[in-house]
Amino acid sequence: MKLSRKNLAERQEHLYDAIIVGGGAGGLSAAIYLQRYGLSCLVIEKGKGRSFWMQDLRNYLGLPPTTPGRDLIQQGQNHALELGADHLRGFVEEVTDEGDTFTVKVKVGKQNSEYPIFRSKYIVAASGIIDTLPQLEDMQNVFDYAGYNLHVCMICDGYEMMDRLCGLFVGTEGAINTAFVLNWFTPYITVFTNGKVEVGAEMRQKLQDHGYPLVETPIRRFLGENHEMNGVELIDGSTVKLETGLVAMGSHYHNEYLKGIELERSGQNIVTDSMCRSSHPRIFAVGDLKEGINQVSIAVADGTLAATAIWRDIRRASPPRRWEQNLIGAVS
Amino acid sequence: MKLSRKNLAERQEHLYDAIIVGGGAGGLSAAIYLQRYGLSCLVIEKGKGRSFWMQDLRNYLGLPPTTPGRDLIQQGQNHALELGADHLRGFVEEVTDEGDTFTVKVKVGKQNSEYPIFRSKYIVAASGIIDTLPQLEDMQNVFDYAGYNLHVCMICDGYEMMDRLCGLFVGTEGAINTAFVLNWFTPYITVFTNGKVEVGAEMRQKLQDHGYPLVETPIRRFLGENHEMNGVELIDGSTVKLETGLVAMGSHYHNEYLKGIELERSGQNIVTDSMCRSSHPRIFAVGDLKEGINQVSIAVADGTLAATAIWRDIRRASPPRRWEQNLIGAVS
Repeated sequence: MKLSRKNLAERQEHLYDAIIVGGGAGGLSAAIYLQRYGLSCLVIEKGKGRSFWMQDLRNYLGLPPTTPGRDLIQQGQNHALELGADHLRGFVEEVTDEGDTFTVKVKVGKQNSEYPIFRSKYIVAASGIIDTLPQLEDMQNVFDYAGYNLHVCMICDGYEMMDRLCGLFVGTEGAINTAFVLNWFTPYITVFTNGKVEVGAEMRQKLQDHGYPLVETPIRRFLGENHEMNGVELIDGSTVKLETGLVAMGSHYHNEYLKGIELERSGQNIVTDSMCRSSHPRIFAVGDLKEGINQVSIAVADGTLAATAIWRDIRRASPPRRWEQNLIGAVS
Repeated sequence: MKLSRKNLAERQEHLYDAIIVGGGAGGLSAAIYLQRYGLSCLVIEKGKGRSFWMQDLRNYLGLPPTTPGRDLIQQGQNHALELGADHLRGFVEEVTDEGDTFTVKVKVGKQNSEYPIFRSKYIVAASGIIDTLPQLEDMQNVFDYAGYNLHVCMICDGYEMMDRLCGLFVGTEGAINTAFVLNWFTPYITVFTNGKVEVGAEMRQKLQDHGYPLVETPIRRFLGENHEMNGVELIDGSTVKLETGLVAMGSHYHNEYLKGIELERSGQNIVTDSMCRSSHPRIFAVGDLKEGINQVSIAVADGTLAATAIWRDIRRASPPRRWEQNLIGAVS
């Protein structure tokens, strides 16, 4: 059921089989599988994840390539709720390992917040990443285009950038190397540092050898209309014509709630085995939090794997169910 | 484009980046990704795979749980075709490794068959498994219920069997062990051997200890109506009431076309790395052919991974694309 301020108390005594942090593709897939294995779960979703603001999900089997990410999420939420999952809009502040169980402290509501605590046997960390976007004075101008033709994922949207005039927006010198992969899709690349990156001689030479202009003047705003970005205006008043853009400014992993628990990591990713189990036997990581490519299809499979591993653990630890009426000497 | 007898010749000179054997969930997902990476592929589909005759796909994120498997396949086929993939209805007879490329011999048409040969750099083996069903004199009677409430996959459909009177149909003594996992979902299990399995004393004792009847009389037919199986009639005229069933008679791996190529295997599964690459660097295996759980979500992710690995190989072997007009001394 949907939990909210009104009915929080009802479920605080319940020991969930799993609490899933994050209600995106990976978390909802895990919820669907867990419920179908006859287990109980709570999905806690802070809102506005990466798949939510994706305008078109163009590479997921079974859905027309014009499906907005939020439709996938909405369908999955309904699916999980119908199967008996609980769902709460809130921000997970801290997960504490209490030995056989976890406690999960959640902040509910931005004003006059409440801080309920839920309990579970397993944790599925499905809280993904938050992309870093170019910081302009008018952030609304960035949001007008991000997720439309200003992309954040080359694997997802390289196809949409094929042979187009493309702005590559970077926050570090290292990120400029994205250009040398992006050029598989288009060679018409202009790199923008927004005046915030020191670019060394070697990288300048490499860009020059490829014919990719480097623009170091800060950006005033994106140009365009109807969410169709068609260029950039710089603070000196000059403009650069573009047909598409890729933001390669890194991302922020939403996993601070796990800070009290030691987990093996690789960079910022949580290291997992082939079933998405982390180095902690009762914590799983799915989707963008773990190593690998950040794709909806991968997150959905990860949710399947994590739920299946949790089910196997719980099933193997449970006594077998006998058919009592057929047992000799069985008492009804 | 759709290939058929009419236009086979058009594509026989083309060197595809990848030929995908099998047009189920894994193969179509690979096709969608390959095309979006700007690569060319041909999907060869023999028809009537496992996902095709699945009546409801109840555990795949994004689709309502009443979606027939064939809708997923149809949507995926359209999606791949729109992106420029080629699709052929045919049976792959043999794949031959010619060093840098493969030749793929296909049988097209059941009568007056033609045997075109196609060429590719990579092979994606996505041809899955074919479930063994109980062999009755009237096979139509089996098909009336298989994929409805006579299930073949416990992971997929255990939920539908929850606490129901369930027939477990086995073809070997080992398969009877399925009962001791199935009992997570329901303890009301009757095991049917259709008179074809020798069951040892130890297994008989184990079944008795759990209260699961063993029926060794051959089956005459399934009972029921409107694809809803409600029991079994045996050849001695007696009947057993059931509410659902699970066929656990094993499956046949459709991979004979690879017989001329040495591949590392684990049992009948093709061993792959984390990107679905087999021990042959240009052959990938996705979905049910490889190790792991046989789920649509897994096959879709596998297709993503295989396509991405193929793209990386091809991209890294390709010269970088420069933006010529910006190169000093460039000739237009």
